[in-house]
Amino acid sequence: MHMMDTPLVLTSFLNRAERYFHAKKIYSRTSPTTIHEFTYKEYVKRTRKLADALTKLGMTRGMKVGTFAWNHHRHLEAYFAVPCAGAVLHMINIRMTPEHIAYVINHAEDEILLIDDNLVPLLAPIASQLTTVKQFIVMGDNVALDSVPLPNALSYEDILTEASDDYSFPENVDENAPAGMCYTSATTGMPKGVVYTHRSIVLHSMAAGLSDSIGVCENDVVLPVVPMFHANAWGLPFASVLFGSTQVLPGPMFTPQLLLDLFVQYKVTLTAGVPTIWLGVLQEQRNNPRDLSSLRSIVCGGSASPMGLIRGFEEEGGIPYYTGYGMTETSPLVSLSTYLSHMQDYSSDEKMHVRVTQGITMPLIETRVVNENGEVPWDGKTMGEITIRGPWIAAEYYKDERTQEAFKDGWLYTGDIAVMTSDGYIKITDRTKDLIKSGGEWISSVELENALMSHEKVFEAAVIAIPHEKWLERPLACVVPKPEFKDTITKEELLDSLRNQFHKTWIPDDVVFLDEIPKTSVGKFMKVKLREDLKDFRVEV
Amino acid sequence: MHMMDTPLVLTSFLNRAERYFHAKKIYSRTSPTTIHEFTYKEYVKRTRKLADALTKLGMTRGMKVGTFAWNHHRHLEAYFAVPCAGAVLHMINIRMTPEHIAYVINHAEDEILLIDDNLVPLLAPIASQLTTVKQFIVMGDNVALDSVPLPNALSYEDILTEASDDYSFPENVDENAPAGMCYTSATTGMPKGVVYTHRSIVLHSMAAGLSDSIGVCENDVVLPVVPMFHANAWGLPFASVLFGSTQVLPGPMFTPQLLLDLFVQYKVTLTAGVPTIWLGVLQEQRNNPRDLSSLRSIVCGGSASPMGLIRGFEEEGGIPYYTGYGMTETSPLVSLSTYLSHMQDYSSDEKMHVRVTQGITMPLIETRVVNENGEVPWDGKTMGEITIRGPWIAAEYYKDERTQEAFKDGWLYTGDIAVMTSDGYIKITDRTKDLIKSGGEWISSVELENALMSHEKVFEAAVIAIPHEKWLERPLACVVPKPEFKDTITKEELLDSLRNQFHKTWIPDDVVFLDEIPKTSVGKFMKVKLREDLKDFRVEV
Repeated sequence: MHMMDTPLVLTSFLNRAERYFHAKKIYSRTSPTTIHEFTYKEYVKRTRKLADALTKLGMTRGMKVGTFAWNHHRHLEAYFAVPCAGAVLHMINIRMTPEHIAYVINHAEDEILLIDDNLVPLLAPIASQLTTVKQFIVMGDNVALDSVPLPNALSYEDILTEASDDYSFPENVDENAPAGMCYTSATTGMPKGVVYTHRSIVLHSMAAGLSDSIGVCENDVVLPVVPMFHANAWGLPFASVLFGSTQVLPGPMFTPQLLLDLFVQYKVTLTAGVPTIWLGVLQEQRNNPRDLSSLRSIVCGGSASPMGLIRGFEEEGGIPYYTGYGMTETSPLVSLSTYLSHMQDYSSDEKMHVRVTQGITMPLIETRVVNENGEVPWDGKTMGEITIRGPWIAAEYYKDERTQEAFKDGWLYTGDIAVMTSDGYIKITDRTKDLIKSGGEWISSVELENALMSHEKVFEAAVIAIPHEKWLERPLACVVPKPEFKDTITKEELLDSLRNQFHKTWIPDDVVFLDEIPKTSVGKFMKVKLREDLKDFRVEV
Repeated sequence: MHMMDTPLVLTSFLNRAERYFHAKKIYSRTSPTTIHEFTYKEYVKRTRKLADALTKLGMTRGMKVGTFAWNHHRHLEAYFAVPCAGAVLHMINIRMTPEHIAYVINHAEDEILLIDDNLVPLLAPIASQLTTVKQFIVMGDNVALDSVPLPNALSYEDILTEASDDYSFPENVDENAPAGMCYTSATTGMPKGVVYTHRSIVLHSMAAGLSDSIGVCENDVVLPVVPMFHANAWGLPFASVLFGSTQVLPGPMFTPQLLLDLFVQYKVTLTAGVPTIWLGVLQEQRNNPRDLSSLRSIVCGGSASPMGLIRGFEEEGGIPYYTGYGMTETSPLVSLSTYLSHMQDYSSDEKMHVRVTQGITMPLIETRVVNENGEVPWDGKTMGEITIRGPWIAAEYYKDERTQEAFKDGWLYTGDIAVMTSDGYIKITDRTKDLIKSGGEWISSVELENALMSHEKVFEAAVIAIPHEKWLERPLACVVPKPEFKDTITKEELLDSLRNQFHKTWIPDDVVFLDEIPKTSVGKFMKVKLREDLKDFRVEV
């Protein structure tokens, strides 16, 4: 042994935070009117108590402990108490259907569940279907156990009161031991599980702290809008503890007003969420401007951001807006739209065309966009599927035969269709299943959507394939107008705006106006639903 | 296997640089008048060729390949060609004595040696003592092999010309395989070897890229003054390739003038070296000011920096000056004097008192300052020995029984004496062997030296112990005056300046004026020599 064989484990994050960042603060909104505030010292103490309490309740190495919760301090305590004790934190997506929720809890074999008091109504109806859960624990400021319709439920605060903060986390956890798990929705069938290891989370957190990445640091005040039940809140809670960042956890409510108020009140420097969130925040900020000078970065992922949205934050607010790429299977950070040094002199327009991509790949991660001829040229045109490998990329779905569909030859096949820019930036053009194949040509629904969403009268837009006798498929634009243009917007002006930008074969055959685009549990456009809703739509000739 | 078991190996750095940073530049001074300039694309190509050439010459997995060279592009080629091929890069400190040089080459069992043409005269006299070396290869722009007094020597450029850039690095190198090695001088006896692994170098490089650390990034233009034969040039060549930084390698000459000219010519953003270098650079910059606005960080290590030096760069030049701590055994990055967020509002004086410490410990690394009672309190006063553990800390000396003196209970015992500030910053007060024990009290020679070096008439100062009948040891100040004060400086004014700052028991018994302080091969004060030179010194009473 030449170098020390120090394992890469999460306990080192907790020890570091306790040692160096004990006086730093964590703010946590537990209700619309209550903000809980404590120091990292108290945080680590409560985390030890939680580990002690759960151990007394029977938590053992490798046991799955589920959380069904918003972004708050108790969830953050579970984020470390469970894996540092050697058990596995299963972050359950509360926005799934009841059927899927029951499935993932049973499939993961969760034995203990930590549930927000205000989410009990979502879980109670399926409680009887949960075959492995032995203990329900309800999290909240004032839990009235009498009125909790879950068998033998305990109160989180009660068990912490009785627990000891002398608890010591085991020192012999293997870096390849499972630490956490998330399920991701599948095109068909039940959700698929991904298991993170201590090593994968440690390396992912280091990547999040790089100057050339998100750059999470001690000076940051981090507000994750992305839920802690969705791809580890993009790893921000882990990285924040490692680097000792101040944390602001927004709890169950995150309207644009509430978010902007938190940004101002706590001088938030770094925040992250999906485009839908930022569309609302930008609109509210335009209507009621606040001082956002503390914000150094907005990180956006989940789906592509319209250029107008990015421009709004960058040019009106002076706030760098980074598009990232990743998924549950990738921990999730794969790439980020940071600038390379030669882009410093780009015009504002050229810079926007960088920001709108999914960015350049992180150190230690490899990406390839491949089609039937192998890796596509970096020409910004040739489409292929994104494949990924690296130390924080899943190797399999948890006990799931669908592993073989996505994991081949050591690479994850993402099902996302992209081109590579000449600088090697990934630019997503579609999901494999959302590509429109018209007369043998691939048409990118995402590019048409982005163009439509840049139109001044459009709030949101989705483009889907509809059946066509001659071309097999043709694009149909589904548009939600901004309220003030609802009565005046016309199909023709939208199609005209597209004609200036795309070849005529790409122009949608028609436009339908909707009140909203149906969305998935994580805020992405649910095109399956849209196609289903519009399956009988025929273009009027 | 939940996550991909992607090994942490250096080949991933090279592949990343080739893929994304192919157009970025590396500048390398090979002589006082020649600067070699090429792109990363050509760099990787030549690195492949070097691996091919060395393989043809018999390089195998695990074989030790020595380098005896300054900081230049050929050395950088060897930095990756050797370990990525599975062999081990032994970076030989050219400043050691001939006896030590012969020892380390034989002890490491180097079979191939890459030697700078201008360093051949240092090596040739001991060539016949090298029992394991089978092949000498001479690096230079115009190597005249006829005049090289080494048996069967080859020219580096000749073997590259004949090599193929189709060479593929093996994909099955284990992350715990040895990648590099350095020897460090010992208090007594021969130098001790440290072996770095792929994993330790990868993790160390990630740490160097953190926002809260050195923050090496693609936008950086990095000039390592610290030699590539000394503790991996503090890891900067590895990190620069990982992050795609522009590199400026200063070659065999680095006078203050030449360094400042390079800073200006290439708009250097980040540089690193020992205090002696920065003392000279600051003096030259004061005499002939240049535009140093591109410099975002000076990193200083090796020994403590006088506060006047730090203040000079920070206050006169607006250039942040970070003190780091580390050693050959620690890869070397252990800690860095970055500010925590609560220090932002510190006064200029308070900030200087942070910068002058060895800083806060890196993520994934643990440090403890311990004395006979265990960890010392964080009071800025109680001295103890620095102990370290973590994934880029050595676990042993290579085939050396002295391992057991320094490595105990999983910790490295550094022999450095320090206090911990209330924020957990390490502040070195001495080497164990340099501590002055006067009447049962420990006196820190480093604190006295720093105070003396802050005196306007002093260029350099060292404080050593001299024998004393009553107190056993007493401090003696050895001072090099600035040239302009050489004839006017007095002992009394120096001692008076100390009386304002230290308890009377700490005031040196006498001052001797010297023309220079003897230094070790890496620029540290050689107090052993000083004590030897002054062993008969007696204080005049």
